[in-house]
Amino acid sequence: MSKLKTASSPKKSGKRSAGARVGGIVDGLVVPGFRASGISCGIKGKRGALDLALILSDTDASVAGVFTLSTTKAAPVILDIKRVRSGTSRGIIVNSGCANASVGKLGMKTALAMTSAVESEVGVKKGSILVSSTGVIGVPMPEEKVLKGVPKLVKELSSDGLARAATAIMTTDVWPKTVVKKARIGGKSITVAGIAKGAGMIAPNMATMLGYFLTDATIGSAVLSSALKVAVDGSFNSVVVDNDTSTNDTVLALANGFSGCKEIKKGTKDFETFVKLLSALALELALLIVADGEGATRVVEVELKGATSKANARKAARSIVESLLVKTAFFGGDPNWGRIVMAIGKSGIKINEEKLDIVLNGVCVVKNGIDTGAEKKASVAIKRPEVKVLIDLNMGRGAARLWTSDIGYEYIRINSAYRT
Amino acid sequence: MSKLKTASSPKKSGKRSAGARVGGIVDGLVVPGFRASGISCGIKGKRGALDLALILSDTDASVAGVFTLSTTKAAPVILDIKRVRSGTSRGIIVNSGCANASVGKLGMKTALAMTSAVESEVGVKKGSILVSSTGVIGVPMPEEKVLKGVPKLVKELSSDGLARAATAIMTTDVWPKTVVKKARIGGKSITVAGIAKGAGMIAPNMATMLGYFLTDATIGSAVLSSALKVAVDGSFNSVVVDNDTSTNDTVLALANGFSGCKEIKKGTKDFETFVKLLSALALELALLIVADGEGATRVVEVELKGATSKANARKAARSIVESLLVKTAFFGGDPNWGRIVMAIGKSGIKINEEKLDIVLNGVCVVKNGIDTGAEKKASVAIKRPEVKVLIDLNMGRGAARLWTSDIGYEYIRINSAYRT
Repeated sequence: MSKLKTASSPKKSGKRSAGARVGGIVDGLVVPGFRASGISCGIKGKRGALDLALILSDTDASVAGVFTLSTTKAAPVILDIKRVRSGTSRGIIVNSGCANASVGKLGMKTALAMTSAVESEVGVKKGSILVSSTGVIGVPMPEEKVLKGVPKLVKELSSDGLARAATAIMTTDVWPKTVVKKARIGGKSITVAGIAKGAGMIAPNMATMLGYFLTDATIGSAVLSSALKVAVDGSFNSVVVDNDTSTNDTVLALANGFSGCKEIKKGTKDFETFVKLLSALALELALLIVADGEGATRVVEVELKGATSKANARKAARSIVESLLVKTAFFGGDPNWGRIVMAIGKSGIKINEEKLDIVLNGVCVVKNGIDTGAEKKASVAIKRPEVKVLIDLNMGRGAARLWTSDIGYEYIRINSAYRT
Repeated sequence: MSKLKTASSPKKSGKRSAGARVGGIVDGLVVPGFRASGISCGIKGKRGALDLALILSDTDASVAGVFTLSTTKAAPVILDIKRVRSGTSRGIIVNSGCANASVGKLGMKTALAMTSAVESEVGVKKGSILVSSTGVIGVPMPEEKVLKGVPKLVKELSSDGLARAATAIMTTDVWPKTVVKKARIGGKSITVAGIAKGAGMIAPNMATMLGYFLTDATIGSAVLSSALKVAVDGSFNSVVVDNDTSTNDTVLALANGFSGCKEIKKGTKDFETFVKLLSALALELALLIVADGEGATRVVEVELKGATSKANARKAARSIVESLLVKTAFFGGDPNWGRIVMAIGKSGIKINEEKLDIVLNGVCVVKNGIDTGAEKKASVAIKRPEVKVLIDLNMGRGAARLWTSDIGYEYIRINSAYRT
């Protein structure tokens, strides 16, 4: 039998916090058979700012990916989608500071040049390296700087290099986002580590969000892909910062089998354990992304139950976490539940207001559709870094859980002056 | 033959402006056979703040309405939908400061009490008065104050009272929104006047938006309804401030036939002229609402053409005007066209980036999907109160035009502290 085990808890090393959750580098961020590095190659301009990362498996790894649904996908995404189909990969090069998106045919040329440079430098076969880019859209990559950086990037690879890689993929993120857990699967202790970057443009169906999972588990690419899909649906695809979806969003998982565990097959206990492990890590990373939402001061969890279907529950919950009026109310610490009702109504789902209950951080503010007079109490209760909104439509069994951050002045400041 | 004629142009009397357009009270805001009033009955608490309005036709008028699509409609909306079906009405009572929404069964009781009070005081038949409410959701109406105010409200009715009515329906609006035009239809000069309130929660499919059109034209309720639908689709349903949709949105049109013009029938030149007139007035009001968007500093018009269908054009244009990243970029005066591409991609419509052109206030920033290097020029060009974004997908004949405002610090300030 398998059992989940947490390898470590996050060190609180972040500068900005939307509450209890703070990112940073966790202890034990090492996965057998993987090395990583992060360097400054000069894309960001700022002296010494890390902007180029590499993750490398010592042998061919099974690979799975989930990508943005945007119809204006950046070149690296298009290239990765193609390469992931082969089922194996050796590693991933990632740059921050430039999205390599909307630059015409130049985009694919740059993406190929980046992967080729790593393939040559490491001495692995053509097509075995993947690539991600994040940053400003529409600006050509300073390709020379990147290519010049590759030898150093490869030279600095080390088994404890994931911390630097996690830092090098950041854009407006305040702190790096890392997670790691171990579990006993297939007779061995296996490790899964994850790193991610987020901040703005976060919405269901991915966002300016990059996430990478590395594991020494033994698992085929098709099975890994199933597990990743489940994990992403309940995490990265369930968080909203500003409803925008990026051209570059990518989540990749590499599994190199270094643990020597029995191969994880679908429909087994081991698979279940692996999915749980991956899902827990993905949710942890996704919540770090929300907590680091641009200018966020609170993480808001919306649990909506009692809907006539799961789809309706998700529709209404999404309408709430996407509402700018709801998010600004939480920024102001205002238990303005009327805006929550507005957002449910706007979603178009069936609702019987006379059955509606709303609870904010344990304080019931609406019972059977009517104000309970607990506004003052609720106002105190929600002035916390974490707000839990529980909505019961009392109509059926459909339920959904989504997360978002509040939106305040800092979001406007960051995004009205991002480039200028 | 009929001909459109402008009765007057808006007086520039507003305090805040998102550009050339400023609201206020226009000259000649009088429609034969209609009287109106606006008083302070104490809902808003602030001494003397107008919060109760009445519009009354001297005889039964044809009536048509367009209402919020929210599934949590406020009681006044539910009542109006029912009453509008009769085809005739004598007038409308409107309060600001309280939405009379999400208050359980009390909502309908209050809505009925408000209309009954007017019906008794004026001496018109039961069910002939309509009602709208706007303001905070979830708070019961101070019904006594309203009922106590009704005699004064009726007493102050006057043919030039629309200005005060327009002021009494405001919430976070900075200035009243009024329009009036005359046209020769059915052998007579007819007048159409309109008043509206807007500000926050503005999105396609209506918003915390109230709009009332009054005309002395002779027109049946079914024909009036057709005309109103066309006018609303191209105006109130084509503007976005913050994507949120209110529980109370209502547009009503009353036509009392006082002009003595020949009845306007469908399929005639007169009908066409009337639709054009109503549409022009509705668009003028809708743009005043955008210009008065909470904290707005710019009005942004997005014209998207060359899509494979009209539906796709509207989908992509809507994704752009709804994008917080696009709106904050315009607030910052940043011609960050990458965010426009992101928003188009996010909409899910087919796009061939190599054919994409983007023009910002006359400056082409993207040609065939590639940056033209005109960013500095564009940066100067868009630092104006009105920004026109022209996007050509060069794929087909589908086109759409939508309007929005930018979003800045002031929006956050207003909405994080609206109640507290």
